[in-house]
Amino acid sequence: MGALHDGHISLVRQAAAENTDVFVSIYVNPTQFGVNEDLDKYPKTWESDMKMLEALDAELESKPNGSGRITAVFAPTSKVMYPTLPPTSDIDGEGSFVTVTPVGKLLEGASRPVFFRGVATVCMKLFNIVEPERVYFGQKDVQQTVVIRRMVQDFHLNTEVKIGPTQREVDGLALSSRNVYLGARRRKVGVVLSQALGAAEKQYAAGKRTRSDILWPANELVMNEMAKQEELDPSARARIEVDYLSLADPDTMQEVDEVDETKGAIISGAMRMLPLEHPQPGEECGLGDGEVPVRLIDNIILKPTAR
Amino acid sequence: MGALHDGHISLVRQAAAENTDVFVSIYVNPTQFGVNEDLDKYPKTWESDMKMLEALDAELESKPNGSGRITAVFAPTSKVMYPTLPPTSDIDGEGSFVTVTPVGKLLEGASRPVFFRGVATVCMKLFNIVEPERVYFGQKDVQQTVVIRRMVQDFHLNTEVKIGPTQREVDGLALSSRNVYLGARRRKVGVVLSQALGAAEKQYAAGKRTRSDILWPANELVMNEMAKQEELDPSARARIEVDYLSLADPDTMQEVDEVDETKGAIISGAMRMLPLEHPQPGEECGLGDGEVPVRLIDNIILKPTAR
Repeated sequence: MGALHDGHISLVRQAAAENTDVFVSIYVNPTQFGVNEDLDKYPKTWESDMKMLEALDAELESKPNGSGRITAVFAPTSKVMYPTLPPTSDIDGEGSFVTVTPVGKLLEGASRPVFFRGVATVCMKLFNIVEPERVYFGQKDVQQTVVIRRMVQDFHLNTEVKIGPTQREVDGLALSSRNVYLGARRRKVGVVLSQALGAAEKQYAAGKRTRSDILWPANELVMNEMAKQEELDPSARARIEVDYLSLADPDTMQEVDEVDETKGAIISGAMRMLPLEHPQPGEECGLGDGEVPVRLIDNIILKPTAR
Repeated sequence: MGALHDGHISLVRQAAAENTDVFVSIYVNPTQFGVNEDLDKYPKTWESDMKMLEALDAELESKPNGSGRITAVFAPTSKVMYPTLPPTSDIDGEGSFVTVTPVGKLLEGASRPVFFRGVATVCMKLFNIVEPERVYFGQKDVQQTVVIRRMVQDFHLNTEVKIGPTQREVDGLALSSRNVYLGARRRKVGVVLSQALGAAEKQYAAGKRTRSDILWPANELVMNEMAKQEELDPSARARIEVDYLSLADPDTMQEVDEVDETKGAIISGAMRMLPLEHPQPGEECGLGDGEVPVRLIDNIILKPTAR
């Protein structure tokens, strides 16, 4: 969807290491945005995206042992992607769609009912146009990777789904195109999500397997941060709303009460950083002056420990 | 779906004339049957299907100027076609589906809400597995051809959709796998559908362009036949229920009030032959002893007359 950051670049780099020709698609897909979502506000940064890709391609060209290259940037119009009816953001809207349920209705799909329908539909089109041997997705959008894997399996698509690791800031915050809206104050508080998931991961590493044992420190960390922010003065605080903290099956994203050691699990979370209150003179408020609520998501994969 | 008849054979013959290798798929797809529909009753005739295809392939082999051949019969299990969740006949059921609306909700889709979802889904899978350069469908299921064409266009599928003409009995009845259930009495009355559509086609050929001018003789013919049957003794009659008589846009299947001469139109109809009443001793009642209601569909394409 453009607004490229180092997470995207790491995926292209991985693709170039494993293939001769890399096609980069940049398309802000309207059908995955709900009627009241931020399609218009989604950052569009074509010039800087191209600069980043040119720099990366120069890096690939200079690799001593040879490397794949960026063969094309595919940036279609909506008339190409939706050639007959205009793309709809309405769950009851008309058109040609791919739905993948129940996974597409859980977690991210619960609060965004058209989201995974839009993602699956546009990816089916992209795959058919480009016919890639391998497709690369970032782990950060873990449920998206589960939906795409399931779509590839169920529809017998002739491509291999590869997942690149989540890229993070030094303090752990997952890179996201939406982070530019945070500003300094919310940026600092937003790191609690990755910390919470990390705390849950430690429980698993320590041998815990039940939902409550794994998730409680994550819940506690987030709750404490929320309470702390509520107590601060509006001129200093960054308020949080938690959407979910989840421990789910890695193939279906359905919640589990206990981790199956042969399958592992996915810990994931989503929270909203509310609009900034009482911005102070000279405060770095981010793109949109802190007025845009920012939804953060993150996840950690708990690998299977038995066969 | 198997239960091959000369309509299917004509499609394979057409495919062999235009290609080197023909893949014949035989799969009774559960997701296109509604919960209360006749999936279990759908005729399964594997032995005779194979005999027909063997005879056809021998004919193709002996063609003096060379011809394509039947390279494979693809007859998958449901576990291949639906590898993750079991196939559902429930419109709210879970799984991975392709929907093509509004065309998939009209006419045949109005009385069979899961039908075109099942058709589009299974065809998407078939196309991905076989990767055919061309796919062949019969005009008899005209709405199906519109759904498939739309799916190919919207999802950028790399295949060409070819339509073969409807094959008919001498009196005009369209060939259908379901005709074996009719028996002699209902068979004789069932011809009214193709006669009605033919009457409407004549109006178009005579220069009529409005819906009422084109459809009235079709409606009249069917109404008269219904009335005639109602008056007969139950031991002699074959009762009809009309589902629809339609004059529709050829790209969307939406009803039209007047035919656009640059696009033409599709006249189509569907009616149910009700179960046979009072079968007589020695009467030829068809497969299922006349107890199975038989839904007949048929259509005629009105070609554009202007550019």
